Amino acid sequence: MARRQNIRLTLAYDGGGFSGWQVQPGRRTVQGVLEEAIAELTGEATRVLSAGRTDAGVHALGQVASFRTSATIPPEKWRPALQARLPEDVVILESAAVDDDFHATYSAVSKRYRYVLRESRLDDPFLRRYVWRLPPPLDGEAMHAAAQPLLGTHDFRCFETDWPNKASSVRTVLDVQWRRVQAWPVWSPRPLGQPPLADDSRGEFLVFEIAADGFLYNMVRAIVGTLVNVGRGKWPVDVLQQILASQDRSRAGETAPPQGLYLASVEYETPLPRATEKREIEGDE
Amino acid sequence: MARRQNIRLTLAYDGGGFSGWQVQPGRRTVQGVLEEAIAELTGEATRVLSAGRTDAGVHALGQVASFRTSATIPPEKWRPALQARLPEDVVILESAAVDDDFHATYSAVSKRYRYVLRESRLDDPFLRRYVWRLPPPLDGEAMHAAAQPLLGTHDFRCFETDWPNKASSVRTVLDVQWRRVQAWPVWSPRPLGQPPLADDSRGEFLVFEIAADGFLYNMVRAIVGTLVNVGRGKWPVDVLQQILASQDRSRAGETAPPQGLYLASVEYETPLPRATEKREIEGDE
Repeated sequence: MARRQNIRLTLAYDGGGFSGWQVQPGRRTVQGVLEEAIAELTGEATRVLSAGRTDAGVHALGQVASFRTSATIPPEKWRPALQARLPEDVVILESAAVDDDFHATYSAVSKRYRYVLRESRLDDPFLRRYVWRLPPPLDGEAMHAAAQPLLGTHDFRCFETDWPNKASSVRTVLDVQWRRVQAWPVWSPRPLGQPPLADDSRGEFLVFEIAADGFLYNMVRAIVGTLVNVGRGKWPVDVLQQILASQDRSRAGETAPPQGLYLASVEYETPLPRATEKREIEGDE
Repeated sequence: MARRQNIRLTLAYDGGGFSGWQVQPGRRTVQGVLEEAIAELTGEATRVLSAGRTDAGVHALGQVASFRTSATIPPEKWRPALQARLPEDVVILESAAVDDDFHATYSAVSKRYRYVLRESRLDDPFLRRYVWRLPPPLDGEAMHAAAQPLLGTHDFRCFETDWPNKASSVRTVLDVQWRRVQAWPVWSPRPLGQPPLADDSRGEFLVFEIAADGFLYNMVRAIVGTLVNVGRGKWPVDVLQQILASQDRSRAGETAPPQGLYLASVEYETPLPRATEKREIEGDE
């Protein structure tokens, strides 16, 4: 009998058409369409596990998933073979064989999320599923300054939605920033190569990026909802210290909507770690 | 009785969910949803006319439409009033009152279309409805050079799909270019501020832009299909002269798919012209 392979997939998906990552009866989920594609290809019922269980409407740019299989398909051939059996809102970027010990969830050492705000009075038909639109003005510098106390190791229960409960709500944030990003010129009515109109508030996006060793459920969205209150001038720039110290979810802002959130990437140790110390399963975002 | 107003709308739409601009029984069209919104708002059955009748799947960034109405809504209030009654894949950017003589179709002096190619071996879940993906390599410089003979006044029947027939197939091309455009960094799995991976062919797009005093049916898509054959090295860089001289549609390339095409903008004379010389109605793209 063939030795079982452990296959790692890197994938991107548009979360707008999915009820999140995790299989749910009667719902279209990313895990569901992947497991169906594998079953169609191999005849095997396989569980596909991911680095982060994204919620309904949340996107992925570099999600990592893994599964074990008895099929003898060469590792790099899984990408095209599965892609041919997947809907076009899920794209496999890479497939590779990994050590038996590798587990997409437990082996991850850090993850990076991105949240995209569009500062505009008008919607954009091309971006309605991909950003959170807010009317101007938003003070990006204040939001960036206000986010800095998140860096380091803290108890983040003030930013956790109460499901699922975790054994620990202590996490370490490795990087946090707000950046202004220009609009994609392809979607401007102005001729290519010409600058956006001076009064065109559609020209800029405010993008939040946060890397940490793990995230609590809805943590990024609760942080963004909090920082938007700073950007609007409703809350002071030092409000994060107070909220973190309070350990009280009701002190933080509202949970930002899902369509602005992207799981950007997942980092693993190199060489791939042995899964000696299994962490609790992340149920974030 | 109130004087009838002539209202001009500037609008953007995602063509992916529409069977094109023009009302067709039983189909969802842009003209249809606009006329329904106006009827809901005013109780009037009104015909909305546009600068260009985009085909199914074709997008607009700055389409211009106009309609006449007896309703006494102030010109700038039409935008929010109609937007509240429109689906989210149509966005009104501006509403204004214009002279009685203004007609979105007849008064246009030029239009600008854009076509977006993505040079990549892999699809992107966020762009599947918005670009034509082609595997590399594509020689953008050769495509740009090959396009230059389009400039000026020519009989473009070699690039016209045979419906609807026009009185004349002579048009004047005012601007034509291919440009490389960087990917939107928000959709890269790489951290913001870091350059794309060296081997990441997903980092660049080839964008065609063409302005003319008018376009024949499917003209831009036939030109793009032709220039792609140059970009692939199948056809010589001087092939456009031969095709234009032939006046033979069968000599040109295939019609490029609709999802990469955008009506970018429409130019009108300033001050708005009197419609003394009515041109035939454009039925392009």
